[in-house]
Order: sequence, then C-alpha cells, then structure tokens
Amino acid sequence: MRYKITVEYDGTPFCGWQRQDGVDTIQQRLEKALLPLSKIPVTIYGSGRTDTGVHALAQVAHFDLNNDIDCFRIQECMNAYLREVPICVLSVEKVNNEFDARFSAVERTYIYKILNRRARACIDANRVWRVVPLLDNEKMHNTAQILVGKHDFSSFRAAGCQSNSPVKTMNSISVTRNGELIIVEVKARSFLYHQVRNIVGSLVNVGSGKWSEEDFAKVFQAKDRTLAGMTAPACGLYFAGVKYDMEKFCL
Amino acid sequence: MRYKITVEYDGTPFCGWQRQDGVDTIQQRLEKALLPLSKIPVTIYGSGRTDTGVHALAQVAHFDLNNDIDCFRIQECMNAYLREVPICVLSVEKVNNEFDARFSAVERTYIYKILNRRARACIDANRVWRVVPLLDNEKMHNTAQILVGKHDFSSFRAAGCQSNSPVKTMNSISVTRNGELIIVEVKARSFLYHQVRNIVGSLVNVGSGKWSEEDFAKVFQAKDRTLAGMTAPACGLYFAGVKYDMEKFCL
Repeated sequence: MRYKITVEYDGTPFCGWQRQDGVDTIQQRLEKALLPLSKIPVTIYGSGRTDTGVHALAQVAHFDLNNDIDCFRIQECMNAYLREVPICVLSVEKVNNEFDARFSAVERTYIYKILNRRARACIDANRVWRVVPLLDNEKMHNTAQILVGKHDFSSFRAAGCQSNSPVKTMNSISVTRNGELIIVEVKARSFLYHQVRNIVGSLVNVGSGKWSEEDFAKVFQAKDRTLAGMTAPACGLYFAGVKYDMEKFCL
Repeated sequence: MRYKITVEYDGTPFCGWQRQDGVDTIQQRLEKALLPLSKIPVTIYGSGRTDTGVHALAQVAHFDLNNDIDCFRIQECMNAYLREVPICVLSVEKVNNEFDARFSAVERTYIYKILNRRARACIDANRVWRVVPLLDNEKMHNTAQILVGKHDFSSFRAAGCQSNSPVKTMNSISVTRNGELIIVEVKARSFLYHQVRNIVGSLVNVGSGKWSEEDFAKVFQAKDRTLAGMTAPACGLYFAGVKYDMEKFCL
C-alpha cells in the first residue's frame, strides 16, 4: 500500500531533507517516526530535496507499507514521535502505485521571504532574509517577468547541480510587499540547484538600485553564474507546495 | 533629553516585560543594552506590560538621558547589545518631556493568532495557538461586535487585575481568516489584565460551536469571570502597536 504525506518543517536545525550518515535530516526523522508502525525500515521519498536551513510549508513524500493502516492513525502516530522536533505531518492519503512524489509532480512552488528593514529579524529570526536597503518591489516584480517561460537558467545554477540540462520552464514569478515583508513566489515543474536563491539574490540587486532592469536581463542572457548576484540565504526559502494530477493516483 | 523607542520581541524566553529580581525580562534587557551609552542606570518605561510568552511587534517605551545622543546611534548600539536575545529596537525618536509611553497612549492594538488545524504548530511553534476544531471565523467576528463600545468587561477580567474599574471602551475587534490562520485584532485605549486572551478563549467556544452567539452575550452581560471560556495561551498574543498624538510631543 502506497501513502502520500504532506509535511511541514522548520529547516533551521536540520542538515536538509536527505538522509546522510552522522547528521540530522528531515528524511531520517520521518523514517524513524514511521518505524513504530512499519516495524521494518521504510524509505520515504520526497518530491525534492531541501538544503540545510530551508523550510517547507508543504513538502510531499511517498512510502510503501506492507500493511493497510488507517491514514489518520499514521498521521497521529508520526506526529507523536516527531513531537521533539520542528517537523509535522499535515496529511496522509492512500494513493495507487503509479504515484511518485518526485516524478509525478506537475508543478512546484517556492516562496522566499525578505524582511526589508534596518533592524535584524527578531520574531522572524531564521524565517526571513533581512535586507536593509529599501527595495523597490514593483521594479523587482517587473524585472522578474523576463524569467517566465522556457529558458537556459545557467546564470542562476549553482555548481554541483545534478540536472542534465540548464533549461527549465518557469510558470510564474511574483514579487509582492506586505509592509516590511517582501514575498517572492516562484512556480515551475522543477528547479536547478539554488535557482530560486540565486534569482532572489539578483533581484535584490535590482530592488536596491545596484542593478538596472537591463543589467538583470544581461546577466540572465549571459548564461554565466559568475555574473549573477549573491545566493540569498537558505533561511528565507520555503518549499511551499507541489501539484499533482491526483485523479490519476486515486485508489 | 527624552527618547521614545519602538521595540519588537519574541516573548518566549522571557518572564514578561517588567523588571523583576532573578528572572529574565524584556525591560531589564533593554535597560542593560542602554547602559554602555547612558553610563548610569536608566529606567525604561513601557506603554504596557506584557506577560510571560507574549510577543510585541511594536511595544513603545520612553526613557531619559542626561546627554543628547543621536537616535540612530542609540538604536544601533542597543541592537548590538541585544544581539544574543530576541529583542530589537525598531526606531528611536526624541520627544519632549510631556511624552509618557504609558499615559500618553491614545489607542493600543493587540493581535491574537490562532492556527486552526489538526497538526500542531511547527514553523510557527510558540507564535500561535493551535486550535483543532474547525472554527467559524465569520460567526466569531459577528459575535465579537457586541464588545465594541464602553462596557463592563468583568467577565473577561483576570484575578489580580490592578485596574480601578472593569469598565473599558473597545474601539474595534475583528476576526479574519487567511487559510489556516485566524487573526483577532483588538483596539482600545487600555485593557484589563488578560482581557484579550479571555475574549479569544470565549470566542473560540463560539467558533467551534460549543457556544451560540447568545451564550457569548449572556456570559459577557453576566460580568462574572467564572462563566467565561478559557484564557487563550500567551504564545498567540502580540502587542501590535500604540497610537499617540505625536504632534503634542515634538521637540
């Protein structure tokens, strides 16, 4: 029996999603929380890895159990074992074996939170990137629209990216402000390594006036990572959701 | 020279605002952070005390210094000394000696955050009150309107309240929902001890269907604390701002 779970986590204390020896990761915490029910070790497959310090509002993962267990019981049991750590299971659903959290994904959404003020983040420490210069969020939004569509994103691709191609299709990107908080929301089927954080770093250069819209366009078109802005810090990034054609995966 | 400061804090690790021997409070942290500039102990007067675990988005306070120090320098210096704790100074202004953070206040705003879902708060741990039953926020909003105006709030007044009278004037109260998050915003010149948290506890009874609108009205009119709902936990409460007639206090 295959299960789809949706998970929220505060990435601050973890070395990212992926299981690794000797460090604390979200994947292994979830697998450990499943053990009292599964009795045998079960691998939990995420829809995408997140880096150290990156949060998730709705990470999706799947796993298989030999027995048919009530979804609500799985959720309550896992959450009981996760009580000590900032990870929680938001929902559990049964799906057919065609469902794969990673490969069935139609669209992923990331949001990036910038706290635009002088004083450091306090209530939102580790939840936002504090940027001091006043940012022109409308200019950032307008500039970002050049990224929508199918493009070579080499300029925003980190070294160590395992994607076969730097070409990705960005479905949408928006930059909105609510008081001191600026939210960048990005949607695409898949992303290159550090793509969102690199885009945000360069958009902040536009927002602060360091770069013009044309500078940003030139950097994007150059397909050269060394020209782009800094990689925005992990703590502002949230894996916000994954879309699937769920009617294909109903039992 | 009198200064007005606006302060943000995460109340979680503190025993509230007010200076007390042997425990960590926000007032004494601020006073300590001022010492390198003031050289002599200076009392910082808040616009209102907050309890253990209650947060502030914009607490206001005033203090006097013998010397005339640049406001920006005060802010930067205090924030440097506050780096280890979740308190930060958002702004510093010079005001005349008529200004009193507490007694000059025209209106105070509190917000209360409820996370309305099954799974416990994770990214927002210690920042919200998690309430499991689905709450009817519109019914809560409509019910709450009975509180607007000048009334005897004895039903929502905690034991130990030092106010001379249980009569207060509530300027406005609203209950709004944004996904799983429900925000209660309350505005009044001043509040009774635990008034907001007691109101929220009773409104949740209405939202969950445990009480009708009429039940709430009866409890309010009874002027009897023992009839009201639970005191909502401190972690969901934010002291959100104070209004002053600032033109009176300009130098």
